[in-house]
Amino acid sequence: MPDKRRKLPMQQQKCVQEQCPRDRYRWQLPDIVSSMIKTCYDPICFEHVDASPMPSRDAAIAILDTCKDILFPGYFRNQGVDSNNLEYRLGLDISGLFESLSHEVSSSLRHECRRLGHTCYQCDKQGEETALQFLENLPELRATLATDVRAAFEGDPAASSYDEIIFSYPGILAILTYRVANLLYKLEVPILPRILSEYAHSVTGIDIHPGATIGESFFIDHGTGVVIGQTAVIGNRVKIYQGVTLGALSFKREESGDLDRCSKRHPTLEDDVTVYAGSTILGGKTVIGARAVVGGNVWLTESVPPDTKVLLNPPELVFKTTQG
Amino acid sequence: MPDKRRKLPMQQQKCVQEQCPRDRYRWQLPDIVSSMIKTCYDPICFEHVDASPMPSRDAAIAILDTCKDILFPGYFRNQGVDSNNLEYRLGLDISGLFESLSHEVSSSLRHECRRLGHTCYQCDKQGEETALQFLENLPELRATLATDVRAAFEGDPAASSYDEIIFSYPGILAILTYRVANLLYKLEVPILPRILSEYAHSVTGIDIHPGATIGESFFIDHGTGVVIGQTAVIGNRVKIYQGVTLGALSFKREESGDLDRCSKRHPTLEDDVTVYAGSTILGGKTVIGARAVVGGNVWLTESVPPDTKVLLNPPELVFKTTQG
Amino acid sequence: MPDKRRKLPMQQQKCVQEQCPRDRYRWQLPDIVSSMIKTCYDPICFEHVDASPMPSRDAAIAILDTCKDILFPGYFRNQGVDSNNLEYRLGLDISGLFESLSHEVSSSLRHECRRLGHTCYQCDKQGEETALQFLENLPELRATLATDVRAAFEGDPAASSYDEIIFSYPGILAILTYRVANLLYKLEVPILPRILSEYAHSVTGIDIHPGATIGESFFIDHGTGVVIGQTAVIGNRVKIYQGVTLGALSFKREESGDLDRCSKRHPTLEDDVTVYAGSTILGGKTVIGARAVVGGNVWLTESVPPDTKVLLNPPELVFKTTQG
Repeated sequence: MPDKRRKLPMQQQKCVQEQCPRDRYRWQLPDIVSSMIKTCYDPICFEHVDASPMPSRDAAIAILDTCKDILFPGYFRNQGVDSNNLEYRLGLDISGLFESLSHEVSSSLRHECRRLGHTCYQCDKQGEETALQFLENLPELRATLATDVRAAFEGDPAASSYDEIIFSYPGILAILTYRVANLLYKLEVPILPRILSEYAHSVTGIDIHPGATIGESFFIDHGTGVVIGQTAVIGNRVKIYQGVTLGALSFKREESGDLDRCSKRHPTLEDDVTVYAGSTILGGKTVIGARAVVGGNVWLTESVPPDTKVLLNPPELVFKTTQG
Repeated sequence: MPDKRRKLPMQQQKCVQEQCPRDRYRWQLPDIVSSMIKTCYDPICFEHVDASPMPSRDAAIAILDTCKDILFPGYFRNQGVDSNNLEYRLGLDISGLFESLSHEVSSSLRHECRRLGHTCYQCDKQGEETALQFLENLPELRATLATDVRAAFEGDPAASSYDEIIFSYPGILAILTYRVANLLYKLEVPILPRILSEYAHSVTGIDIHPGATIGESFFIDHGTGVVIGQTAVIGNRVKIYQGVTLGALSFKREESGDLDRCSKRHPTLEDDVTVYAGSTILGGKTVIGARAVVGGNVWLTESVPPDTKVLLNPPELVFKTTQG
Repeated sequence: MPDKRRKLPMQQQKCVQEQCPRDRYRWQLPDIVSSMIKTCYDPICFEHVDASPMPSRDAAIAILDTCKDILFPGYFRNQGVDSNNLEYRLGLDISGLFESLSHEVSSSLRHECRRLGHTCYQCDKQGEETALQFLENLPELRATLATDVRAAFEGDPAASSYDEIIFSYPGILAILTYRVANLLYKLEVPILPRILSEYAHSVTGIDIHPGATIGESFFIDHGTGVVIGQTAVIGNRVKIYQGVTLGALSFKREESGDLDRCSKRHPTLEDDVTVYAGSTILGGKTVIGARAVVGGNVWLTESVPPDTKVLLNPPELVFKTTQG
């Protein structure tokens, strides 16, 4: 009953405090609560008071985990899968995914409707439709991911087996999450794809925007610090290493003063391109031609023709002896 | 009863092993335990035997989660907040935060007292006082974070809404955690601020020391690999990108041979500075003047005047055709 | 009963759907399950159907947590350790570790046997033997880790106590995990070491292959983006900073067309070497001599003699005033 306490005369308050040293400060909390509530109605702050609930981050991660179980049966949580129980296992996982994905997609749509002031009357139905379309694409997703696993084995001499790659390579987790998020992005689900991609970013240090377009047999080695922007386009059999950025040049504002959020701002890598560690490729008109190799630490804002090696003319090093 | 087992005559041991193949090796464990215990009293090793407990990392993360709920009501765990229940929700969260923060601050203080051999008689009271001062700063913290969210929307063409930023941008999580940790740091709480900042570092790849000084409307894009040192000073409306380091030059030792742990070792960025990806700015006397822009991959150990663009004279690239 | 439902005549299906709008799409799930099952027998995809279970990632992380409790008693989960209960605490932790490690090593071995088509008849025994050998090395591991903690305190002016380092420094977590994983790697345990190292990579952004060889008093500051390859060799008292790569030059294929997965592909750093942030050192024949210092952002594919400083001849910067 904080309000009553605040009305006690000062002397009585002191008395209470002396009797109960644990209440030295607690009687001041209601004032703090009031001042926080005031800021909730301050237009400069953000809140979700009276708004529809956000999609849940935990539910999004659970959806990704179920996708992993379905895409690589026997590897992750549902071990002990064999030909006798595979149908039951997959059946259960796929029905469960339908339920949870429908629900989260509906939440995302409803949240977006409310945010934009739209009337929201089909969000449940659209959630189910989208979940179904997602599920129908799973077999193809599985085949594409198999090309990514093979590319990792071909690309990394330290890989001792396919299992090790599926089980522990951060590049595979980032690519799997990207492929799931990108499918949801193409189905025009708001917010959820970005929650997934930022989860993978957090776990792997690899930041792939769900809007990027990436072909099959894609390999990312080590991966920490990789950034692939929203409008990047990557062909088949492309290899990139840690610290590679496919980014935007500093962007222009529209005449209204707002940012241009639609044009192609990130580069294109054609088939069979390799980009070594720490290189940065910027700009929506920059095209790295097929089979080109970009060496480490290169900074590129211009296109490269096919079948070309681009290397840094190694900057001069200075060697000084420090021995007495 | 390992000690009794070790006293069994050898023959009898073998017999036991034959009867119970699961005990092939377990009888050797007591020797290993003994040798580990011996190292616990070896002065070269570290232990917390007979020391007061450390503040708990899990409790620290729970405190941060409650701060997030209070600072952005409705976004994270306490969804379904509306104007009818907002006061109850915030009241509960703020009282809970007071309890848990008081407790962890007291633990941190008590641990530090024990470590330094001080008498510790006011740690409980000081914990409560500090928690209260922290809470009193929450409304201001909230207003500052709102400027950070707006800066992210202004700075990133891929941002589709404020909600997406609050909900999923690693830069916002890192800045929120920094602002919480920095407040505790300024209230002279030991250990806890660093636990929080290393948690955010782990989740986002962004390493901001709680001692850094950072103005409002701060934007970090992508963020993996960012390092901001303890004595860095950053003005208002500053933007930095992934892989930027605000670090120290190699440091000097004091005459005693110990490290100088107090002087300003990290640079200053004045208002409206932008630093693009991969740049490194070092040294406590290095000042980047207001409105300056530092391009990507620049290595700076000297000051830059206001209203200046600093770009790398692009190192020469070598293009080689690889086509037969 | 999806199969029965699929056999209902079309008209009746529609009727059911109208009565129960929640079943708009669910009747289509069995077809999706069937097409996913089909891909499980497609040779291009990977699955674990009929294979032995993988070692569990959660169990691996639990093993690492127990190692942390044993190596730094009182710091992590088992607080309140004192000289009265230390023996019980360590005894319990070490017996528990023996059990869980035996089990996971056996799983890893059995999985590898099945994958390679070997007969597997000693995996249980070998799991226990390996776990015992691991435990016997713990006292030495503890002494080595103490040198790493001291090196961090000596190397970082922002470190305020040993406790802060043990409790919150990502470099120490990465090095501790590496030392545990490397011990398992040397005991020829498959898969498990890599699961551990990728866990630390995920948490710290520091990617150390369990096969690397690293001396005592090793210090990694900040660490995000560090990559240390499988055949790298690092001496005593070496310091490296964030974004340093010890990597391979582009590798050659064997005559068979397969990758050469055995030769030394990564560099050697002799005693007392320091490598500053963002530098890349590549190649199995590259040796950085004792006491050498490699400055920031250096790209090295050649050896450096002992007692030498290697600095980038700083690339020219262009300064432009932007003031009207």
